[in-house]
Amino acid sequence: MSGRVSAIARPRVVVLGAGFAGLNAAHALRDADAAVVLLDKNNYHTFQPLLYQVSTGYLAAEEVGATLRTIFRRQPSVTVRMGAAVSVEWTDRKLCLQDGSALEFDYLILAAGAETNYFGIAGMAEHSWPLYTLDDAVRLRMHLLNRLEEAAATVDHAAEPITAVVVGGGPTGVETAGALASMGQELVGPATALRVTLVEAIPRLLAAFSPRSSKRALEDLRRRGVEVRLGETVDSADAGGVTLADGHRIETDTVIWAAGVQANPLGGAFGLELAKHGRILVDPQLRVPGHPNVFAAGDIAVTTPAHGAPPPMLASAAIQTGRHAGEQVARLLAGKPLIPFRYRDKGIMAVLGRGDAVAELPLRSSGGRTSRYPLRFGGLPAWLLWLGVHIVYLIGFRNRLKVLLDWGWSYFTSRGAGAILVHPPDTRQRTS
Amino acid sequence: MSGRVSAIARPRVVVLGAGFAGLNAAHALRDADAAVVLLDKNNYHTFQPLLYQVSTGYLAAEEVGATLRTIFRRQPSVTVRMGAAVSVEWTDRKLCLQDGSALEFDYLILAAGAETNYFGIAGMAEHSWPLYTLDDAVRLRMHLLNRLEEAAATVDHAAEPITAVVVGGGPTGVETAGALASMGQELVGPATALRVTLVEAIPRLLAAFSPRSSKRALEDLRRRGVEVRLGETVDSADAGGVTLADGHRIETDTVIWAAGVQANPLGGAFGLELAKHGRILVDPQLRVPGHPNVFAAGDIAVTTPAHGAPPPMLASAAIQTGRHAGEQVARLLAGKPLIPFRYRDKGIMAVLGRGDAVAELPLRSSGGRTSRYPLRFGGLPAWLLWLGVHIVYLIGFRNRLKVLLDWGWSYFTSRGAGAILVHPPDTRQRTS
Repeated sequence: MSGRVSAIARPRVVVLGAGFAGLNAAHALRDADAAVVLLDKNNYHTFQPLLYQVSTGYLAAEEVGATLRTIFRRQPSVTVRMGAAVSVEWTDRKLCLQDGSALEFDYLILAAGAETNYFGIAGMAEHSWPLYTLDDAVRLRMHLLNRLEEAAATVDHAAEPITAVVVGGGPTGVETAGALASMGQELVGPATALRVTLVEAIPRLLAAFSPRSSKRALEDLRRRGVEVRLGETVDSADAGGVTLADGHRIETDTVIWAAGVQANPLGGAFGLELAKHGRILVDPQLRVPGHPNVFAAGDIAVTTPAHGAPPPMLASAAIQTGRHAGEQVARLLAGKPLIPFRYRDKGIMAVLGRGDAVAELPLRSSGGRTSRYPLRFGGLPAWLLWLGVHIVYLIGFRNRLKVLLDWGWSYFTSRGAGAILVHPPDTRQRTS
Repeated sequence: MSGRVSAIARPRVVVLGAGFAGLNAAHALRDADAAVVLLDKNNYHTFQPLLYQVSTGYLAAEEVGATLRTIFRRQPSVTVRMGAAVSVEWTDRKLCLQDGSALEFDYLILAAGAETNYFGIAGMAEHSWPLYTLDDAVRLRMHLLNRLEEAAATVDHAAEPITAVVVGGGPTGVETAGALASMGQELVGPATALRVTLVEAIPRLLAAFSPRSSKRALEDLRRRGVEVRLGETVDSADAGGVTLADGHRIETDTVIWAAGVQANPLGGAFGLELAKHGRILVDPQLRVPGHPNVFAAGDIAVTTPAHGAPPPMLASAAIQTGRHAGEQVARLLAGKPLIPFRYRDKGIMAVLGRGDAVAELPLRSSGGRTSRYPLRFGGLPAWLLWLGVHIVYLIGFRNRLKVLLDWGWSYFTSRGAGAILVHPPDTRQRTS
């Protein structure tokens, strides 16, 4: 009997990575006649756009992490496996995992995402806090809370102000710097000052946005006490602070790296052809050249579509390419022809503060990225749109309720939820 | 001017410990003309009765920990200080802290609580997981989730069942064993079996309760698959498991210690007279003999009241003694005479499962502990009472909402909230 079962076993699709791309790929396979194995280093999906709120104590880690088995509880064909792939044996169609085991596949969807890119800046990898995984966010929060507690421990005399440097003026850097500016006062009390400096290499914040949104972000951060240094690059980082290219020195033990990402190096380790940022170059069907049963989606891959722009390294692109890759495998399984991917640009948004954001949208989902979005607005309407989009895409109904509760609460009381310092003994020593 | 200010400075009351006793002591000083410093190892209050729900993935750490500064935001006379006291200089009225600094006091309230007591069982301190602090609970959860993930990683063959041993059959042991029995299946899936054994030295569970409640707890745990070994003591623990006094061996790498606590050893370190369980012996006014400005409350202290029973090591006693100690200092500050403490027994409760608990209550809050409580009931009414009491005493309105949300959710869906494995790299090695 069991031999019989294995002889008629359904083909196995391995989805490598459970970020936006991997989740949507696995979900797109819900009606396919296949056994899906979703492999990820963690047993949860991370809602990356809100990591900065975890690192600044406004949300609990559990609120931006959703257990994969819970997400797929109604899709029994999906098996969740926690583990890390290190190499592949293409001829045997086998992934080799870090724990020494192997995972065979008939179809493979590579969706392992991206990682922090320090651009080779001396000392940056060793001396800065990245903000790309939930572990990163929790560790940064512990560090920040420890520093704030140390400052607050001086009952009998005035505390030295704490200095934090955020490198990078994109949405993550702007959002993080803004949240940090609020954090010290709201969480620890007015006695402690947290001085925040943001350094951005180009002459304006939010480079992907219109100059008007950039100006708005700059004015907002400055009004909230953030020192913004535009057009300045960081030359090196060490245990005592950062040195800018012009020689200016900022003493700090809190450098937050929000300046760049690159594709997960797995593409190179698997011997695949890479494009800019180390992304796997896939064909317009999102298929890996030379491997008819292998697709790649999300930040790890890039394609030059037949028409329109290539998908950027953004959540909305990962959702679209992930879904498309899953559908492609489903088409192959059903004997149907593949269809080319077409990116729909949904626009861009960044939060500036409580009740304040900027949003720039296409008039309708356009096939390619335009240099300017025609629909631009800011303030409360943009913030409400941001809130709505994030609540809709947040995984898990309970998480949505909790995050809404926390945001509503913070909005009216200016107090964060997650400022408790669990594990203080582990945090004085960074684990990198 | 500053000399003038210091000459008319308000007296400083240091409250050592921010558990139930310390919180209530600080709160009782809200109208006193004093500067209150609340000193604790953590920057949060831990709601200990729900720690087992954090360790089994049903609640997030943030839901049972409440930031101290947030709790006292409307009581500006309270300063929160994170730190650990190591010794005292009585003549200078100065606490010496672990970081080398000192904290002067005019009045001192010792409320440093209790800690795990392994009763000298060989290997137990090294090889078991305690469940007494939020750090303990988070570490145990990481360990359990890692073990469950390892078992679930065997996609291609059946997994070895995981074994967990809970030592202690009091409310904590019963609640933990019951939650563990549900955890494996609900969080990871039916493929993985989690075998739970509970070992209790005396011949029944819940010794403080009536035999009927004990029987109910036993039947309930057994029905849920927990192996209950009554009248058996653990002789030793090692990396591979536990050995019982009768020579029986249970192989496991998950021993959870829920069998005993003792007072924080600070009383001894401070040179004070100790009673049973290492508790500081205070007079009926909760004052430390020989130190007219020093009081002690909660688990760390015990008194022989003029009438009635001494306060047990329970949350309700800590709340009452803490409040009384704070009020005593307020009386001294106002030039009023001290009044003796009188313990009001509120009864006992333990949860057996979802919608099931046992409760035993006095007819009215009696002055002393009776051997039997006249009001005894179980099932859903007892569970609803347990739920109500825990929600009322949980600190922070937002935490109450979130815990209610999580409980309601779990009640109807049988799914926990906090099963995400943040920090996996740190958990393979125990930090003890």
